[in-house]
Amino acid sequence: MVKIKIFSKPKLKNPILIEGLPGVGNIGRVAVGYMIEELKAKKFAELYSKHFFPFVMLHDEYKVHLLKNEFYYIKAKKANQRDVIFMVGDCQSLSPHGHYEIMEAVLDFAEKFNVKDVITIGGLATGELEKDPEVIGAVTDEKLIKKYKGLGIKFDAGERVGYIVGAAGLLVGLCNERGMNGLCLLGETSGFPIVTDPKSGEMVLNVLTKILKVKINTDKLEDRVKEMEKFIKKVETLQRKALSEINKSEKAPVNEKEQLRYIG
Amino acid sequence: MVKIKIFSKPKLKNPILIEGLPGVGNIGRVAVGYMIEELKAKKFAELYSKHFFPFVMLHDEYKVHLLKNEFYYIKAKKANQRDVIFMVGDCQSLSPHGHYEIMEAVLDFAEKFNVKDVITIGGLATGELEKDPEVIGAVTDEKLIKKYKGLGIKFDAGERVGYIVGAAGLLVGLCNERGMNGLCLLGETSGFPIVTDPKSGEMVLNVLTKILKVKINTDKLEDRVKEMEKFIKKVETLQRKALSEINKSEKAPVNEKEQLRYIG
Amino acid sequence: MVKIKIFSKPKLKNPILIEGLPGVGNIGRVAVGYMIEELKAKKFAELYSKHFFPFVMLHDEYKVHLLKNEFYYIKAKKANQRDVIFMVGDCQSLSPHGHYEIMEAVLDFAEKFNVKDVITIGGLATGELEKDPEVIGAVTDEKLIKKYKGLGIKFDAGERVGYIVGAAGLLVGLCNERGMNGLCLLGETSGFPIVTDPKSGEMVLNVLTKILKVKINTDKLEDRVKEMEKFIKKVETLQRKALSEINKSEKAPVNEKEQLRYIG
Amino acid sequence: MVKIKIFSKPKLKNPILIEGLPGVGNIGRVAVGYMIEELKAKKFAELYSKHFFPFVMLHDEYKVHLLKNEFYYIKAKKANQRDVIFMVGDCQSLSPHGHYEIMEAVLDFAEKFNVKDVITIGGLATGELEKDPEVIGAVTDEKLIKKYKGLGIKFDAGERVGYIVGAAGLLVGLCNERGMNGLCLLGETSGFPIVTDPKSGEMVLNVLTKILKVKINTDKLEDRVKEMEKFIKKVETLQRKALSEINKSEKAPVNEKEQLRYIG
Repeated sequence: MVKIKIFSKPKLKNPILIEGLPGVGNIGRVAVGYMIEELKAKKFAELYSKHFFPFVMLHDEYKVHLLKNEFYYIKAKKANQRDVIFMVGDCQSLSPHGHYEIMEAVLDFAEKFNVKDVITIGGLATGELEKDPEVIGAVTDEKLIKKYKGLGIKFDAGERVGYIVGAAGLLVGLCNERGMNGLCLLGETSGFPIVTDPKSGEMVLNVLTKILKVKINTDKLEDRVKEMEKFIKKVETLQRKALSEINKSEKAPVNEKEQLRYIG
Repeated sequence: MVKIKIFSKPKLKNPILIEGLPGVGNIGRVAVGYMIEELKAKKFAELYSKHFFPFVMLHDEYKVHLLKNEFYYIKAKKANQRDVIFMVGDCQSLSPHGHYEIMEAVLDFAEKFNVKDVITIGGLATGELEKDPEVIGAVTDEKLIKKYKGLGIKFDAGERVGYIVGAAGLLVGLCNERGMNGLCLLGETSGFPIVTDPKSGEMVLNVLTKILKVKINTDKLEDRVKEMEKFIKKVETLQRKALSEINKSEKAPVNEKEQLRYIG
Repeated sequence: MVKIKIFSKPKLKNPILIEGLPGVGNIGRVAVGYMIEELKAKKFAELYSKHFFPFVMLHDEYKVHLLKNEFYYIKAKKANQRDVIFMVGDCQSLSPHGHYEIMEAVLDFAEKFNVKDVITIGGLATGELEKDPEVIGAVTDEKLIKKYKGLGIKFDAGERVGYIVGAAGLLVGLCNERGMNGLCLLGETSGFPIVTDPKSGEMVLNVLTKILKVKINTDKLEDRVKEMEKFIKKVETLQRKALSEINKSEKAPVNEKEQLRYIG
Repeated sequence: MVKIKIFSKPKLKNPILIEGLPGVGNIGRVAVGYMIEELKAKKFAELYSKHFFPFVMLHDEYKVHLLKNEFYYIKAKKANQRDVIFMVGDCQSLSPHGHYEIMEAVLDFAEKFNVKDVITIGGLATGELEKDPEVIGAVTDEKLIKKYKGLGIKFDAGERVGYIVGAAGLLVGLCNERGMNGLCLLGETSGFPIVTDPKSGEMVLNVLTKILKVKINTDKLEDRVKEMEKFIKKVETLQRKALSEINKSEKAPVNEKEQLRYIG
């Protein structure tokens, strides 16, 4: 079960899909989340799935919030710009095969809007505090190297890491199967757990604004990241707690007195 | 596979769905179970699922009992009352994604009866013995705060806990996706494992009777809880035993003499 | 995926389904397997499933054998006898929810032959070497106590154990949902791992022959059990080995030199 | 989800399907991979599945590669030869039931090309460095012993090992269910983890060339194996890393200060 609820069906011309879900350093979540706010993108669809954690979150003291991924759009304002669909969200799949199912559903959805270009964002954990984090790129096709050159992307991901896990990797890998062009941008980050990295997020943001030919004031980024981080950290903590609850209940010792005989 | 067998299709007018499955302190199971008995609600449907534990229970020395969730109803007797569907049961899903599948099936079922309002009940584990347990609330929409105000519910769940796991949380979260109104009531309880908490159950029961505008004599509650607890404890013990059997069989060491060569 | 291949569709009159899969003491596997041989029952269908272990066995030095459950039948020869469908097999489901899926498929299959009565066989592990193992019973309906009385079955399973795990329990529990009558026979056995218990199997066999009103010479039982045991033990050993291989591969440490940076 | 993309539909006459996926010693991957290159087989289809690991690999510094299995074909050039479909790939299923689902999809695909004969290749881990590795065989039917005799295959797999795990075993086991003839070739190999065994691969290759009546120069085998090994090792390392990341995230301890109260 992957359900996508479409609130409105905007007419988009050759839109580009940009994904930024939580992950290492939360680079994508931060960069795309900030763009959505600054560009006043409009929400037009939501996704939820049985592959997410089986809990709801509580907002604003009393409000129940189902875990979701969300889709926003902006329309081009100038001749050299493009329509854009942004995908952000609370979480990724809990189960390994869920990643495939969700990303296939996202691409089915994207095809309805004639998406031909996809950009995903992730973090590349270096294990060190990065003073000048770089933005590393990987693509589905060699011709994209030319298209995205001169924007400060270092196309040597294959040398630095062997693979890209989860949404950021699979969405690009699967979009290739449908003849779409995919670019994965990875911001260098320390990779220390539950640390949102605004500096790396800003580097990726700078690349994205060049690709989209939009201007974004990054002055508020650090403050916004702090706000976002509170929420992102909460989801992460809850997920770890939920997992440990699940594990604990599975490992609860059986009281010997209550121990009944076994039947099979 | 989630199967709901409907024995009879009562004509219900604007019914409210109240869920009380086993969980922390078994608050919901106790409160809803007691209401069903006192209000002489009628069983009209049952649910079972491949997401439940793969065993049957034995009742009354010799009777085989498949794990189930059950649906009961009452019809309003006075002008200010409402028709009600109660959901109780033996257990929740064993697998994380099963929670989503079962709750979606419950809401499909509820929609057949035009359910617009849903109340779920859970326990909030405080880690301490609570002398005066409070009833905490969370809702799908701000307007419900007004609707349910003045009934002794403290709407600060978001401050005390970050999330609601399993049926009580997901049913409310998913009902919001269908335009239904959801309220989750959490009774404060110690959270010590396998302790059914009648005092907290009574507090929730008091809130429920106010919402439903029915009168319920709680004199027999403690006795009934003791009886219910025997059964609930048995299911819990069996589930832990079943899990430990499953784990044991998965970890059984291979006798070295029998160890065959490996092929792949 | 649960596939049942039907080789021939015998015309059976009010047949009774008797299940005996591997389990504690392999009581069912032994008792039903011996009946099939002695009564010269004919194989008419086979079942395999993605819920079985992902390996094939090797027979007779070189022959590949897919894990299976099998269906045999006999037709009544006397007026007081009944047609019977026997179900035996190599294994049960690997995954918890697979038990439900397979047993539902078995009951769909049984309904095609108008099966109204189902008997399943399991072992009741007592933790002690049983000199005079008893046969314990559990049923889906009180009326069956009368039907099966005077055959040496003790209907106090509920007092001795709380539940019946896997095929023997679920098949009876689910058949009740379809209006079929179910009896589960449990042979007392020590429950020591990988010990096939011919004595307990014989006790169950004696009950079964009384129910079916057939005569079976049990002289060859012990010899046949020894032969069967070789095969059953092999499957069990392989399953444990396969599980340990699966676990080992999941826990294989990553060589530190090869350790690549992480991306997400 | 198992998707097979067919690029072209070659007209094949009575083709034989030969499978060689990664496994113990990577015997199959090496032998079939080398044949594909030397015989200049043409790729005509690809398979990917949600049962593979949820990551993409990075090739050539910047190129995203989805995990896949691939299908190649050659057409007979002489009267005594046969058309052949080769199946190779990056990996096998991550989940146990995925093996069944993928192999069923492969056989559905094979049936479209009227495949009647299937050969799978695996490694038999002996735990010792093998100087003169033998090729062991297992078949679906006794008549195949005659067909494949005199080619240096020892048909005593059943004596040496009890089972064949994963693709190599299940593909042969399931093809038997469809009336296809199956042969599994196992090359003896040490079984030390992540060691590709070119010598054993060559022994299997020699058997395959005799079966297919083709000539293959094995001079370049050792060099090619070294090249292949780099890639195969990378996939294996990544899979273990991915698994350990999955496990780590599941076991991450919850910071006590952040520990929120539990709700259920």
